[in-house]
Amino acid sequence: MSQSAMLELTATEARDRMVQGDFTAEAYTQACLDQIAKRDGEVEAWAYLDPAHALAQARALDKQRASGNGTGALHGLPVGIKDIIDTADMPTQNGSALFKGYQPSKDATCVAVLRAAGAVIIGKTVTTELANTTPNKTKNPHNPAHTPGGSSSGSAAGVAARMFPLALGTQTGGSVIRPGSFCGVHAMKPTLGLVSRTGVTLQSHTLDTVGVYGRSLADLALITDALSQYDPSDAVSYERARPTVGATLAAGSVGTPRLGFFRSPAWDQAEPAAREALEAIVKKLGRSAEEVQMPALDGIIQHQANIMAAENSGYYGPLLARNPEGVSPNLTERLKNAAKVSAGDYVRSLAARDVLYGTVERVLGEFSALITLPSCGPAPKGLGSTGNAVFNAMWTYLGVPCVTLPLMTIGGMPCGVQLIGQRRDEGRLLAVARWVEEQVADRVVMR
Amino acid sequence: MSQSAMLELTATEARDRMVQGDFTAEAYTQACLDQIAKRDGEVEAWAYLDPAHALAQARALDKQRASGNGTGALHGLPVGIKDIIDTADMPTQNGSALFKGYQPSKDATCVAVLRAAGAVIIGKTVTTELANTTPNKTKNPHNPAHTPGGSSSGSAAGVAARMFPLALGTQTGGSVIRPGSFCGVHAMKPTLGLVSRTGVTLQSHTLDTVGVYGRSLADLALITDALSQYDPSDAVSYERARPTVGATLAAGSVGTPRLGFFRSPAWDQAEPAAREALEAIVKKLGRSAEEVQMPALDGIIQHQANIMAAENSGYYGPLLARNPEGVSPNLTERLKNAAKVSAGDYVRSLAARDVLYGTVERVLGEFSALITLPSCGPAPKGLGSTGNAVFNAMWTYLGVPCVTLPLMTIGGMPCGVQLIGQRRDEGRLLAVARWVEEQVADRVVMR
Repeated sequence: MSQSAMLELTATEARDRMVQGDFTAEAYTQACLDQIAKRDGEVEAWAYLDPAHALAQARALDKQRASGNGTGALHGLPVGIKDIIDTADMPTQNGSALFKGYQPSKDATCVAVLRAAGAVIIGKTVTTELANTTPNKTKNPHNPAHTPGGSSSGSAAGVAARMFPLALGTQTGGSVIRPGSFCGVHAMKPTLGLVSRTGVTLQSHTLDTVGVYGRSLADLALITDALSQYDPSDAVSYERARPTVGATLAAGSVGTPRLGFFRSPAWDQAEPAAREALEAIVKKLGRSAEEVQMPALDGIIQHQANIMAAENSGYYGPLLARNPEGVSPNLTERLKNAAKVSAGDYVRSLAARDVLYGTVERVLGEFSALITLPSCGPAPKGLGSTGNAVFNAMWTYLGVPCVTLPLMTIGGMPCGVQLIGQRRDEGRLLAVARWVEEQVADRVVMR
Repeated sequence: MSQSAMLELTATEARDRMVQGDFTAEAYTQACLDQIAKRDGEVEAWAYLDPAHALAQARALDKQRASGNGTGALHGLPVGIKDIIDTADMPTQNGSALFKGYQPSKDATCVAVLRAAGAVIIGKTVTTELANTTPNKTKNPHNPAHTPGGSSSGSAAGVAARMFPLALGTQTGGSVIRPGSFCGVHAMKPTLGLVSRTGVTLQSHTLDTVGVYGRSLADLALITDALSQYDPSDAVSYERARPTVGATLAAGSVGTPRLGFFRSPAWDQAEPAAREALEAIVKKLGRSAEEVQMPALDGIIQHQANIMAAENSGYYGPLLARNPEGVSPNLTERLKNAAKVSAGDYVRSLAARDVLYGTVERVLGEFSALITLPSCGPAPKGLGSTGNAVFNAMWTYLGVPCVTLPLMTIGGMPCGVQLIGQRRDEGRLLAVARWVEEQVADRVVMR
């Protein structure tokens, strides 16, 4: 099979081909590396990449398969790892001068789990500074004059540029879903606690969620199931016993789902073309979609901001105090503002979460999923900002699973459609997403 | 049996007598009510008391016993309930003008559990305003010119004045142990999470701990075991499967324990006579006690203060904003200061707890228990303050069990001796406490 044909495959398809022996993990990783050589001069998705080490991992997986010792669920699939996630064999530099060359002593739990499932840990992808808002070098693969979004910039851009079929990101505000929308790829932020954060640089223990990128909904299910594992050392991790996400998705038909079209408190901040495009998508869903009457969610976006600022200040404030020269002016200013959040406001923002989730859960229970925008529009022009997370913050705060589907093109740039589900029900969310993809069929294109 | 003989009994003894039929629950409750009539003019321990209702509960318990349907572990024992703990049949006024006449719709879980064990919920005992520091009307039964301590003022004073054999208090700083020391009774603050807080007015979800008062160590074990129950609706509650506290205490011999004499970072704030008295106690323990070399616990008292202030501000700040006239000048000032704690400091104070507990746990592991003061000395003269919690705050922060034993008299007023154990090991702590009581035998008396 030609390299370009390999790169056309989804992760799930490529895994199946490698298991069947149609091509080797080494050949597939080589195809990815050749694509990186071709595209990365423009995209700059990498914080760390050692092609020889990636190929060595792939050869070891080929050897394991040849030995008859079986293949993992992610056999031979290169996965890009956001550079705030620890790796025993590569530095974790957190997009920060303060961590230049920092080499962790062991893998984050999520990386160890990927390796055990047969993935090739291909390299470390670019993150904004400490996964906050200061942009890094990565460009949008669809147009290098546009931001790829952040903070998981390199992971989203790398999947979009076909440098690897799968990647890990993290979301505290909108850092998985927004880059997914901007780069035109499938992305999911699962329920808070589904994926272990042990070994991930935390900026907010209340909000931080490991998320995934892939080339299809099945790809999202594949890597999510590989990652899903109870971790007693992560306070938000939970014990689980349910069908896998992949099994629920494969079971297929959810009947005709009922979609709740939720403009969200952020609607006025969206670009008119994006609003129009989403309305066109909703129209395609016909009588299955209806406008949601959501009770007031007073202060929900501010609550997320309070918590993110408070915990950022708690973790990074001392870092800034010790090393002011190692922190960018943008992050310095943000941390100075974050230090002004009062503990009382933070306590109230934490306490409000379960109350607000109760309200949202009642609405979610009436629908198969909510449908809304994943970003204010397509990737804005310019590299000075990674864009606005206002369409993501409330879902991160509530800890619910979100997925973005590359179903719209606006002004020549991709823009996603976001679906939201109930906590701990990624399977149903992806099944509904598949129905939406089938229903929409052709992308909605706006000038 | 005469009323005065009944009042001499410990709760455990009285329960046994009532189960055997030596006297009825009604007679015992009547003895308590008569004692209240005698003593409460001076002590003022009550926020709410309805003698007829208490007697009705006692008669119902007598009837249940007579019917052959068995008796609970607390059969016929009147328990004083701090007035921040909800009761379905009596108001919960929180020592605050804002809650005057407030009638909860149901019992706090801890009260429901006591009722199920056959206790008489005799009435609501005086608390300081919202369990904070503004003193209320209660006087020290040993000398009404002195504070009983707080915030569990009425519970400690009522047990000391023999108005009831058992009581519930709560501790956020030093609100169970300090009044226990000042009033010369046995008191225990168990491990954070042993007793459910559902239905208790929270001022700090991180610190608040329901504690108990009794007339002996066996009494503390008796009521603690009755209260010990996993509550999934209280985030700090934990599942448990170990011998009961009472069984561990009854098993007796812990061999010769090894006591760690820990002056604590607060030692310099203690009165010289109290320091001298404790040193005399330690001397009586002979070679079983030795001075602890504790690693530095930097900032531990400040950490507790940050958390208490932050969560107080979170809960009561909006209350103050809405009802400034219903909050005392003292609490108003405290809440205004509390609002100044930054979220970053609060996050760091929360994060430091497990690290500091790791340090303390290693030391606790070398000893059977630590021994220190429960208060800076005996109850200070005057009713304008409930005293200093500096000998309590770090233990509340760490969530470890603490007990105070009435083993010293200083200037004619009682003062306790505090023992500290490892989390979740109240049984061993009380067994060591019994050994200490036997070893000390006669109170240490200082002028």
